Amino acid sequence: MATTAVVGALAVAQKLADRTGLVTDLPGLSGVVLPDFEDLVFGGHDIDPTPLPHRAELLADAGVVPTALVRMLAADLAGVDRRIRRVPPLPAGRQLEYAARISHDLREFRDREGCDRVVVVNVASTEPPLASSPAHADLAALETALRGDSPVLSLSSLYAYAAFRAGCSFVDFTPGAGARIPALGDLAEANGLPWAGSDGKTGETLVKSVLAPMFALRNLRVRSWAGTNLLGGGDGATLADERAAANKIASKGRLLGETLGYEVDAPLHIDYVPDLGDFKTAWDHISFEGFLGLRMSLQFTWHGCDSALAAPLVLDLARLLAQAHAAGRSGPQTPLGFFFKDPVGTDEHRLGAQYESLVAWATSLESGA
Amino acid sequence: MATTAVVGALAVAQKLADRTGLVTDLPGLSGVVLPDFEDLVFGGHDIDPTPLPHRAELLADAGVVPTALVRMLAADLAGVDRRIRRVPPLPAGRQLEYAARISHDLREFRDREGCDRVVVVNVASTEPPLASSPAHADLAALETALRGDSPVLSLSSLYAYAAFRAGCSFVDFTPGAGARIPALGDLAEANGLPWAGSDGKTGETLVKSVLAPMFALRNLRVRSWAGTNLLGGGDGATLADERAAANKIASKGRLLGETLGYEVDAPLHIDYVPDLGDFKTAWDHISFEGFLGLRMSLQFTWHGCDSALAAPLVLDLARLLAQAHAAGRSGPQTPLGFFFKDPVGTDEHRLGAQYESLVAWATSLESGA
Amino acid sequence: MATTAVVGALAVAQKLADRTGLVTDLPGLSGVVLPDFEDLVFGGHDIDPTPLPHRAELLADAGVVPTALVRMLAADLAGVDRRIRRVPPLPAGRQLEYAARISHDLREFRDREGCDRVVVVNVASTEPPLASSPAHADLAALETALRGDSPVLSLSSLYAYAAFRAGCSFVDFTPGAGARIPALGDLAEANGLPWAGSDGKTGETLVKSVLAPMFALRNLRVRSWAGTNLLGGGDGATLADERAAANKIASKGRLLGETLGYEVDAPLHIDYVPDLGDFKTAWDHISFEGFLGLRMSLQFTWHGCDSALAAPLVLDLARLLAQAHAAGRSGPQTPLGFFFKDPVGTDEHRLGAQYESLVAWATSLESGA
Amino acid sequence: MATTAVVGALAVAQKLADRTGLVTDLPGLSGVVLPDFEDLVFGGHDIDPTPLPHRAELLADAGVVPTALVRMLAADLAGVDRRIRRVPPLPAGRQLEYAARISHDLREFRDREGCDRVVVVNVASTEPPLASSPAHADLAALETALRGDSPVLSLSSLYAYAAFRAGCSFVDFTPGAGARIPALGDLAEANGLPWAGSDGKTGETLVKSVLAPMFALRNLRVRSWAGTNLLGGGDGATLADERAAANKIASKGRLLGETLGYEVDAPLHIDYVPDLGDFKTAWDHISFEGFLGLRMSLQFTWHGCDSALAAPLVLDLARLLAQAHAAGRSGPQTPLGFFFKDPVGTDEHRLGAQYESLVAWATSLESGA
Ligand SMILES: NC(=O)c1ccc[n+]([C@@H]2O[C@H](COP(=O)([O-])OP(=O)(O)OC[C@H]3O[C@@H](n4cnc5c(N)ncnc54)[C@H](O)[C@@H]3O)[C@@H](O)[C@H]2O)c1
Ligand SMILES: NC(=O)c1ccc[n+]([C@@H]2O[C@H](COP(=O)([O-])OP(=O)(O)OC[C@H]3O[C@@H](n4cnc5c(N)ncnc54)[C@H](O)[C@@H]3O)[C@@H](O)[C@H]2O)c1
Ligand SMILES: NC(=O)c1ccc[n+]([C@@H]2O[C@H](COP(=O)([O-])OP(=O)(O)OC[C@H]3O[C@@H](n4cnc5c(N)ncnc54)[C@H](O)[C@@H]3O)[C@@H](O)[C@H]2O)c1
Ligand SMILES: NC(=O)c1ccc[n+]([C@@H]2O[C@H](COP(=O)([O-])OP(=O)(O)OC[C@H]3O[C@@H](n4cnc5c(N)ncnc54)[C@H](O)[C@@H]3O)[C@@H](O)[C@H]2O)c1
Ligand code: NA
Ligand code: NA
Repeated sequence: MATTAVVGALAVAQKLADRTGLVTDLPGLSGVVLPDFEDLVFGGHDIDPTPLPHRAELLADAGVVPTALVRMLAADLAGVDRRIRRVPPLPAGRQLEYAARISHDLREFRDREGCDRVVVVNVASTEPPLASSPAHADLAALETALRGDSPVLSLSSLYAYAAFRAGCSFVDFTPGAGARIPALGDLAEANGLPWAGSDGKTGETLVKSVLAPMFALRNLRVRSWAGTNLLGGGDGATLADERAAANKIASKGRLLGETLGYEVDAPLHIDYVPDLGDFKTAWDHISFEGFLGLRMSLQFTWHGCDSALAAPLVLDLARLLAQAHAAGRSGPQTPLGFFFKDPVGTDEHRLGAQYESLVAWATSLESGA
Repeated sequence: MATTAVVGALAVAQKLADRTGLVTDLPGLSGVVLPDFEDLVFGGHDIDPTPLPHRAELLADAGVVPTALVRMLAADLAGVDRRIRRVPPLPAGRQLEYAARISHDLREFRDREGCDRVVVVNVASTEPPLASSPAHADLAALETALRGDSPVLSLSSLYAYAAFRAGCSFVDFTPGAGARIPALGDLAEANGLPWAGSDGKTGETLVKSVLAPMFALRNLRVRSWAGTNLLGGGDGATLADERAAANKIASKGRLLGETLGYEVDAPLHIDYVPDLGDFKTAWDHISFEGFLGLRMSLQFTWHGCDSALAAPLVLDLARLLAQAHAAGRSGPQTPLGFFFKDPVGTDEHRLGAQYESLVAWATSLESGA
Repeated sequence: MATTAVVGALAVAQKLADRTGLVTDLPGLSGVVLPDFEDLVFGGHDIDPTPLPHRAELLADAGVVPTALVRMLAADLAGVDRRIRRVPPLPAGRQLEYAARISHDLREFRDREGCDRVVVVNVASTEPPLASSPAHADLAALETALRGDSPVLSLSSLYAYAAFRAGCSFVDFTPGAGARIPALGDLAEANGLPWAGSDGKTGETLVKSVLAPMFALRNLRVRSWAGTNLLGGGDGATLADERAAANKIASKGRLLGETLGYEVDAPLHIDYVPDLGDFKTAWDHISFEGFLGLRMSLQFTWHGCDSALAAPLVLDLARLLAQAHAAGRSGPQTPLGFFFKDPVGTDEHRLGAQYESLVAWATSLESGA
Repeated sequence: MATTAVVGALAVAQKLADRTGLVTDLPGLSGVVLPDFEDLVFGGHDIDPTPLPHRAELLADAGVVPTALVRMLAADLAGVDRRIRRVPPLPAGRQLEYAARISHDLREFRDREGCDRVVVVNVASTEPPLASSPAHADLAALETALRGDSPVLSLSSLYAYAAFRAGCSFVDFTPGAGARIPALGDLAEANGLPWAGSDGKTGETLVKSVLAPMFALRNLRVRSWAGTNLLGGGDGATLADERAAANKIASKGRLLGETLGYEVDAPLHIDYVPDLGDFKTAWDHISFEGFLGLRMSLQFTWHGCDSALAAPLVLDLARLLAQAHAAGRSGPQTPLGFFFKDPVGTDEHRLGAQYESLVAWATSLESGA
């Protein structure tokens, strides 16, 4: 998805592609002043050494991005690749060192590229949940623990820490703890940094975020909501590991109860089907009850490409958060919940209501309010 | 559906059923003062002589309403049946006489039953479209024409006329012209009568009214939206006639263009499949485009019972319109668009936005504002 | 399902229902001489004390069998109930005693009712797999082990043993080991008893048994075949236990590889959704490849009532096996594979081919061949 | 589809593609001696001047055939293009002249290329039905009429006539009358020419041809079978014309009644949705009844590429019919019904049974029997 986002941003900047899929292009948001695509500079960290241009070609072969586009952008992609640092996997101990290295890279990147500000977006592989720890309560305790030999933070939180230390805002696009740890929240607040999360809402959950309110608004009682997600690709391979899937399933599962106000029997599966490549097919079956107890059902099949759906949202979030940073906002930006499966600071999941908050918030940035 | 509404209203009044499916029972509307179910009195006109208790038994056999309920309500249903007038089909000429008879019945019903006010809800069979006529422009011209030998008004409009003449408010739950004729609008205004319409939004279109905004809010471009509706029952039999179906298809078709802001290839079929009885199965296939031109799809299958979905809305509308009448409102009540496929006076089809208007409007009634 | 089978058999015998769903009623089999429905006598064993007439009423309330039918058959059902023995659950040790009691009941039933022969059909709850044991190899070893304190046979095998000891033929309609244990096979052979199994093929697997051959016959390569089964009811509750589900999933999983001749990525889920009651909804998604590597897909949703689908097959099997017994057949009756997900003695799963074997076999019974 | 067939045949001949999708590659048929792919020579008639290599590129852009393949085969495709004659549309009168020209081209092609024999496969656009005429009864009458000014034969029949006159065998892959006209049948017989038809069975109907027998074999009563086909592409554009669609719908409709033995309510739609390009999405909803009258349903969504499904069958048919011609067969080759929606000379639609006939027939060719 990171690759798709970079290809897309370059294409939009060079007017080789239109803005379909970008929420910031909607009439309601088009008046908001945001960084221009031409002014964005991309860098990153990855444990995988595959060069970005090659990744882009693989995506083109898989039909995710147009082959011609990848060809036209070859030089630009090689340029971005030079700004990607290859890192080792997160070690189990002495995590502070790892974080320091990330922070250092971020500062260097900002200086070298002359960026006004940097937004760190976590789009690394879905991580397994990490138990909470007393060291999470307080920054000093956290940093002490990070010097030790045991794992203290999961990857998403480590990057949040490194970002905040480097004066960067942070988006967690994955279903992890990210900045949702008291010590990290405090750090962001102290450094005047805004952040957002978590877990981009792109497929099955997006559909749920409009269908669940529909049942609610008609006072129809949902009796069960079963879901199956079939996906290949990198994310699919990661989620084939039950521990990683646990985080994702928890993230996807919150919406129903929080929107309907009662608990629903909602079995949910994620199956890795390599054959499906970068596409995901999800089937949901909803059983509901109407007037005088009558039973009815709705089922849907979503066939989408996750990275094509997620990439424009990553770009939207980066631009919006950069602007929030410029406007002096800090802490969790709840009105960005529109973009997430598990929105921080709120249990509002209804897409329409989320959009209204988003517009109000973005419009207020503009005026520097 | 009329039968289901009556069975349900009696059941709710006698606390034999809960209020699932009734929108007026939602927290957002529960504060609004409305006529009590215990105070409602039902009457009606029908061309079909089948007694109401027998119709209710047929519905019970078809699994639409609980058999035990019909048994418990047998006496009450017989009571309502005595207040239903059997009428001949609408004649092609001398329609004023037909209307006068309806008006007379309505007045008599109100007096005999001691009702404060009467709401006429048109739930007759879907009618074919009727060409507009110069006589529609003005009340005097209309009444002259109604004395003649040619058809001037379709059934829905004739009932609207009769209702307004009798001092009753009017809901058109069917996809016809109803009160949407200048002369009738004037008459309602002149008599201080509110009205609403048209065509209850219960199944496939309900789902559309949340999915179309979803695509819009994510700036995903809908490329085609094909729909097939399979239904049996009385409405299915009527819609097997292409002329009647024309009205329904037009009514269902408005939402997409008006919500998305561009025209979409949207073939739509209604098939009469007697075997499905009172249930409707609808399949929609949506093809859409995301970032960098990627093609994706969503399909859904809705399996619902139209009359169970529609009946509580009819009761909601009757109570809301009675209250609007009491509060002195007149003319088309646009905020009731929440209930309709083809809402009068607005091209807002987004369910969430419609609900907000509805709540604001209903809350203002309360205060007599 | 046992209840549905008894209700149905009584209804057919008394001409209160037609023979839809009974395979033995097809033109191809209608010439085969089989026991008349009028001549069947039902008995059974169950650990559940609920009386049969009450179970039938519950099924009527759930819409599985017609209420009127249950009312008309009340006395007959009470009669069958008197022939059902309540038994304790299978003990972990001294299983020979349990078996002896079953055998005794079977003999007594046959004598008392004056039956020519008895077919035991196992339709007990799905059992977890039991490890194979050296004692399974030989009848003497088995009987010695059955006297001990450890479990030796799972329920299905214990009933097979008891049936064979009592001179009864045996059908395993569940996904367990049943008679597929060498010592039991020998016993059946020695006593001249035919048997069949296992796991009735009624829903998703039935559809697979025609779709998989379709792909094969067109030389289309199946790339993945994912399945999700949502079910409530008794069987659903049992399968909510992962250990019981293991047997079912193994049984369902054999068809694909054995029919296509290559292994396919085929994730398969069974979810217990109590709300669905006696109905099952299964969704399968098949991805396949055609000429020049093109990818295509097929998906289906099956919405069926398992017991209504299984009950007539149980009756078919009982009648066919009784006739096979009469005709002197013994051992596994492979041509009955038509009825099973996991047919004994063959890897032929194609429904059409299975039907041809069935007809040839049944026709040969007739002639006493 | 013609383009896909040629690209595929060249690719298989040059070992650039495997034989997925070719029925003649199945184990059951692999022993049959058939013309080698290397020995096939392609020519044709078309009213459309687009050069074949360009058509192939368009298909590659649409994802139907691999881009790399089209590039590698560019020269060969240009070679085939030189053997395609552009013709005017079929005139309304003096059709004998048109036929004579086709016949002449066919003979010239055979001589120039040194082919042992030529198979004419009609894959022209779906034609509207043509009323039968007394002139169809007899060859002399037919040829007299063909000299006149009124249309006598539809396109498929005209090509059949031209083929037979030129000593070529004929396949009608389209839903038209083709060779199913007495005078043409006589002509084929007289000239010792085999023929086959009609309307390739590739998508929704293929699935029907295994599902309908499934219901039949389980004695489940189909109550309704509704189908919707959404397709773009050339065939979609043609079928947007109701007159052309009539032929297709009739062809698709035969299977159900002929397989089940009773008539079923079976509404069937074909919608032209240009957006879907060369892919077709079909949804079928089947309502059926089981034991004791219980209602259940099955629905499926087929998402396939018609030309990729049809192209290998066209190649199979050409090779099989060439061999039949060599083996001295003449007249309608009923065992080729496996390939067709509307098989000539039989009402057997069950795919499994059709395959068995095919194998028996093809095996007998081998031996020259
Ligand atoms: N629609 C979507 O694609 C979508 C939606 C919501 C959330 N997400 C989340 O976004 C994330 C990425 O999804 P994807 O489809 O791009 O997955 P992917 O597997 O294609 O990419 C993950 C990348 O993270 C890199 N990575 C792993 N560990 C790392 C580490 N320690 N440091 C730096 N990089 C590391 C991997 O090498 C890989 O390049 C996942 O967590 C996923 O759950 C994706
Ligand atoms: N979910 C829904 O059920 C739903 C949703 C939206 C709109 N509607 C509309 O509501 C209407 C009723 O639907 P239904 O399912 O109850 O249909 P139905 O066929 O069961 O009932 C229609 C009734 O109207 C009566 N009628 C016909 N002509 C009449 C006349 N001239 N005067 C008086 N009565 C007459 C018929 O006798 C019948 O009793 C239809 O127009 C339908 O399009 C229904
Ligand atoms: N379509 C189908 O219904 C279908 C298809 C294939 C296989 N099966 C198999 O048939 C079996 C029965 O299915 P069902 O839906 O009727 O389930 P169910 O749960 O409704 O019935 C199972 C019955 O077995 C009884 N039982 C449990 N342990 C017993 C014991 N030790 N001795 C005697 N009786 C015992 C239970 O009390 C219950 O009455 C299951 O194993 C299921 O997997 C069913
Ligand atoms: N799966 C399938 O593709 C499939 C299955 C069954 C049947 N068919 C039938 O095969 C036929 C072709 O399908 P297609 O998808 O290739 O359609 P298409 O529209 O892509 O191709 C039809 C071709 O026929 C040509 N043509 C039209 N009139 C002609 C004439 N008078 N003489 C010579 N050529 C003429 C057109 O120019 C065009 O090149 C259709 O009749 C279709 O119903 C196709
Ligand atoms: Na939240
Ligand atoms: Na087997």
